[in-house]
Amino acid sequence: MASQHSSTGIASPASILARIPIFDVCSEPNLHDLAAKSMIRYYEKGKVFFLSDDAADYFYIVVKGWVKLFRETLDGEQAVIDILSQDHVFGETSIFHNHEYPYSAEAVEDCTVLSIPTKALEQLIVANSEFALGMLQAMAKYRKHQEREIEHRSLQSAAQRIGCFLLRIAPQNAHGRINIHLPYDKTLIAARLGMQPETFSRALNKLRDETGIRINGASVEMDDIRHLSSFSCSACSSNFPCEDLSKND
Amino acid sequence: MASQHSSTGIASPASILARIPIFDVCSEPNLHDLAAKSMIRYYEKGKVFFLSDDAADYFYIVVKGWVKLFRETLDGEQAVIDILSQDHVFGETSIFHNHEYPYSAEAVEDCTVLSIPTKALEQLIVANSEFALGMLQAMAKYRKHQEREIEHRSLQSAAQRIGCFLLRIAPQNAHGRINIHLPYDKTLIAARLGMQPETFSRALNKLRDETGIRINGASVEMDDIRHLSSFSCSACSSNFPCEDLSKND
Repeated sequence: MASQHSSTGIASPASILARIPIFDVCSEPNLHDLAAKSMIRYYEKGKVFFLSDDAADYFYIVVKGWVKLFRETLDGEQAVIDILSQDHVFGETSIFHNHEYPYSAEAVEDCTVLSIPTKALEQLIVANSEFALGMLQAMAKYRKHQEREIEHRSLQSAAQRIGCFLLRIAPQNAHGRINIHLPYDKTLIAARLGMQPETFSRALNKLRDETGIRINGASVEMDDIRHLSSFSCSACSSNFPCEDLSKND
Repeated sequence: MASQHSSTGIASPASILARIPIFDVCSEPNLHDLAAKSMIRYYEKGKVFFLSDDAADYFYIVVKGWVKLFRETLDGEQAVIDILSQDHVFGETSIFHNHEYPYSAEAVEDCTVLSIPTKALEQLIVANSEFALGMLQAMAKYRKHQEREIEHRSLQSAAQRIGCFLLRIAPQNAHGRINIHLPYDKTLIAARLGMQPETFSRALNKLRDETGIRINGASVEMDDIRHLSSFSCSACSSNFPCEDLSKND
């Protein structure tokens, strides 16, 4: 099985699980048991993993690609909760919501994921208090991440929030000129930041004027990252460089 | 000790702990041990419980009054994370953040709280996997609450968000005319909703025009709660009445 995966360039379930912080405290046999119950799966761009309130039998780890978590309002508007990349877990909190997914999930480009039965996760939590503690830790970190998101939506301007998005994907300790690549298209970045496309577009122009960044397609160049951080981070309660990133959260 | 508390009209630590869902699974001896380590404390309006990043030796349960959780930006702006009332817990996630509080907390009116050593909470989590599961459940619920908050800041207008705030403190299954009382002053409601006072004031006028609610000081009267829900809840991904409230979360 491992060779089959390595021949396709995809890691084995066990090695994927071993990369995820919440599984750090699992014993070798625990991890292998979980890996044996897991499956590598492929989702084409636009394919839906599950819809909000669907019965939840599996949770997922992103191996490759980007996954959008969202909800839909009665008006038919879509609220993007998060866009997840490699090694992010989704659907796992369904075990605390009557075994129903609390949001919908869709592949925003071709994706490879590891699917794991939610039942196996529940068994781990009950059997291993250290694992439960690790999950609590992961949820507390995510809670702080969400609190920052709420804070930014109150206190940062749209331009500052785009600046923050760029800073968080940039090498924060870089000196001098740097070039970063937008991870997904601008419409999706706007949705991720909860902005209408026009608002995003206006704010991006303002950000360019204020900080001197240069944008060319998906490429963003700047002479000094500190221009961007002094523009955005004054309206944030955390310090730059972002503490949660340096701790590899 | 119990009689001393009952003579002041304040419940005993054990009976306060017994009201909090996360302690449901604690055995009688566990609960009494925790109660013995806890203390009823009084904080005057404006008094700070702790500041963000302070060393966290205690967490708290609100017994009476309102507590504001907040962070401050470099610019000196305050981001209100939440306003908590009776039976809400705060400071407990510090055990997952290097024993430092992830936010500041202040009494927004005279408060009575129960303070409990964070060490006792840690011991409970490690010793009792059912308790750990209960805490995970509580955190998952709070996560959904925050996701809704982020969603509303993207998709609801300011007037709709004030409507949502009112709906969540109203008896949602009421028929006919109802009267609700604003829980704290309008400046604080604005801060809680992440709005500037002027934005709040304009939005409140719009809400009044659109839904026919009547506001007189801290009193809000409406002929039918459905006017308010059809105005606000069309831009929300949850159904009215709010599921999380009916489950007494």
